[in-house]
Amino acid sequence: MTATRKILELNAFDMREAAGLDPDTANLVARRRRVFGPISMLFYARPLNLVRGEGVWLIGADGKRYLDAYNNVASVGHCHPRVVAAVSRQMATLNTHSRYLSEIVYTYAERLLATMPRELSNIVLTCTGSESVDLALRIARAVTGGTGVIVTENAYHGNTLAVTEISPSSASADPRNPHVFLVPAPDTYRTESKDVGPLFAANVNKAIAAMKREKIRFAGLVADCIFSSDGIYPGEPGFMTEAIASVRRAGGVFIADEVQPGFARTGEKMWGFERHDLVPDMVVMGKPMGNGYPIGGVGVKPALLESFGATAGYFNTFGGNPVSAAAGLAVLETLEAENLQENAFKIGAYLVTELDTVAQRFKRVGDVRGSGLYLGVELVRDRKSKKPDRAAATSVVEMLRDRNVLAGIAGPYGNILKIRPPLCFEREHADLLVKALSDSLSTLG
Amino acid sequence: MTATRKILELNAFDMREAAGLDPDTANLVARRRRVFGPISMLFYARPLNLVRGEGVWLIGADGKRYLDAYNNVASVGHCHPRVVAAVSRQMATLNTHSRYLSEIVYTYAERLLATMPRELSNIVLTCTGSESVDLALRIARAVTGGTGVIVTENAYHGNTLAVTEISPSSASADPRNPHVFLVPAPDTYRTESKDVGPLFAANVNKAIAAMKREKIRFAGLVADCIFSSDGIYPGEPGFMTEAIASVRRAGGVFIADEVQPGFARTGEKMWGFERHDLVPDMVVMGKPMGNGYPIGGVGVKPALLESFGATAGYFNTFGGNPVSAAAGLAVLETLEAENLQENAFKIGAYLVTELDTVAQRFKRVGDVRGSGLYLGVELVRDRKSKKPDRAAATSVVEMLRDRNVLAGIAGPYGNILKIRPPLCFEREHADLLVKALSDSLSTLG
Repeated sequence: MTATRKILELNAFDMREAAGLDPDTANLVARRRRVFGPISMLFYARPLNLVRGEGVWLIGADGKRYLDAYNNVASVGHCHPRVVAAVSRQMATLNTHSRYLSEIVYTYAERLLATMPRELSNIVLTCTGSESVDLALRIARAVTGGTGVIVTENAYHGNTLAVTEISPSSASADPRNPHVFLVPAPDTYRTESKDVGPLFAANVNKAIAAMKREKIRFAGLVADCIFSSDGIYPGEPGFMTEAIASVRRAGGVFIADEVQPGFARTGEKMWGFERHDLVPDMVVMGKPMGNGYPIGGVGVKPALLESFGATAGYFNTFGGNPVSAAAGLAVLETLEAENLQENAFKIGAYLVTELDTVAQRFKRVGDVRGSGLYLGVELVRDRKSKKPDRAAATSVVEMLRDRNVLAGIAGPYGNILKIRPPLCFEREHADLLVKALSDSLSTLG
Repeated sequence: MTATRKILELNAFDMREAAGLDPDTANLVARRRRVFGPISMLFYARPLNLVRGEGVWLIGADGKRYLDAYNNVASVGHCHPRVVAAVSRQMATLNTHSRYLSEIVYTYAERLLATMPRELSNIVLTCTGSESVDLALRIARAVTGGTGVIVTENAYHGNTLAVTEISPSSASADPRNPHVFLVPAPDTYRTESKDVGPLFAANVNKAIAAMKREKIRFAGLVADCIFSSDGIYPGEPGFMTEAIASVRRAGGVFIADEVQPGFARTGEKMWGFERHDLVPDMVVMGKPMGNGYPIGGVGVKPALLESFGATAGYFNTFGGNPVSAAAGLAVLETLEAENLQENAFKIGAYLVTELDTVAQRFKRVGDVRGSGLYLGVELVRDRKSKKPDRAAATSVVEMLRDRNVLAGIAGPYGNILKIRPPLCFEREHADLLVKALSDSLSTLG
């Protein structure tokens, strides 16, 4: 399967359908195509032309208000006034790099590290999740002397040359780099097992053994603790303990990718790894960190950073500049001031209950699962075979869009509805979403 | 030589000197050290604590105004009101990713591409120069099927795992990846030759031949057309023609890294490659593109992007978002509205004349060279041996700081003063800089 196809099948606009668009949209699509060429993907059969954002709403050029149940970047809400004000103020005051002193940067780093286990007391600030994972890989290689990395079969960790290699969900990862070893995601649905821990650990052990046989030295395991692109498997708290113990016994490091579950999204904890009571060797951060301002980071144990620094250097021009610190700080303050972790927990739980009710009415719904405001609704041909229904998922996402609700798709078969709204999602928004989904499933028949 | 040492010797703060600092600075240094650990470098024996920026000025917590003759990120001036306003306005309106339509993004891409040769009619937007070079390497590999890359001996192209390997000036590049081949920079000073073109081409040909012998397929040559970290060698316009023709004959692509010379800095042209009348296969952009807002990009020939897209995908969450487009657009508008290219040309020429006068008075000055507002002043033990004087350069940069002027250091021997101010530098600022430099050289004796 080519890369383009792999990606195109997930809720993508098909250029061949451009003739059916209204003139304004068609014109924008054509301008976009001219400058971005063929590799840039647009969502939806009728792409959305957006002009404004506000809380959980995205507003189109057509004046319609779309309920955002998809975007985790504007995590505390689109155009949050606190973040906008903080960034605007700092941009007008000072924006330079980290080779000069600037107090706001350390204040932010201290506040952020205070949310992590004590062992993770150093941080390197970058601009994106991809840069963060890339740096974590460099550190892992340096401290272990290894090159072998374990990831899940449909993981996505980012877009640099090195990180693409550990992102099997990206077509660009084919052919697989022989130093990358894949393990199945901890699938609670198809294994019909609540306790996926032992199986997950056994698979990690198998990968470690395979690496040994191939004389590849182990560097570590990279996982986001909600296995988002694999299909959203939060699992029972603590199920990863055994696997991570195996990683450490074999001399590898555990890199927790918090781009997806981090910053309070799971409702249960601030960090995905915290749900499992784990202390990673490195924590990589991105997307929600600055509510849209490009900022990323690697939380790291000091001994690892020191060992890396003995033979290498790292400088990131925009990374850790005062404006990104202002953005990051405003996000942390907003999470706290608006009790967004609690909100994610509460509204997430409410959503699961409501979605379970929907599931009872439609036999296409095989499973509802998630943690906080990160939910998956798995669509299947029938509940017995559990055969993935990609076509149904694609249709439902388009029908939701027609009902002014934005959702996404996850999983290797493209059959899992991904519900991942801004954390300020309220009960009334949950009701709108559930109603739209229920109506869409009815229409689908 | 370890990496840390490689970097530390270029104008870096030494933690062992922390005892001599005033209490506020010492406190900030300690806080920074606690959160960032040992790998993060600070400039100057007495690090600068900055609180405000304005045009060519950076203002310290001590109330002192420092003339910025170093920073090329805030290229149209620190906290430029037009850029601040554009970013603030767009942040308050809409900030989302490129999978929805957003007109400002295409307007920006069109405006930017209009400054480039017609052949480069596609662009991929990223967040940093490093991400851009990393993507360009992926594209080069995909379209050529090769892995061999030629760069200059002391090049710096960025900080990802893959890009570090083609950045020999970074200690992290040791040991050298065998697919990376080094050529000497086109040194006009030590070769005592104005026309460095034939020698540069001969070296590139040698590298191509070596690659062939080692059965490594050629992917391409990456160069910034001012050879900044090599020591700033703009050379005579057109000198690269022969070398680039060789690259193409051998099946490689030419990637112009415009992070340093681009966006009008050379005064002569908008782009570094334009000075040499070249049409690159890819142009990578970063630093000055958003005046501090994290944005980067790869300008690329459509056929290359299409070929890459046939087996790979690329998506960058923050890349090409509406806020970064607003920042980029404001920078282009400012360059035009304030005639900054012309200003760089005029003030650059004036600076060269004035620095030449200084050079006549101090025999430590071996060479003054540059293009527009990118200048190098090479300090040597004596003019005959041309032995690099690293200690003198380090002292002069510290003495300039004591005179409230910021400059940097370049080159493999750390003996070249790097003068690279915001493009709104005026004659009065040039006079302040020249006077401070002249005074510092006098004091040095």
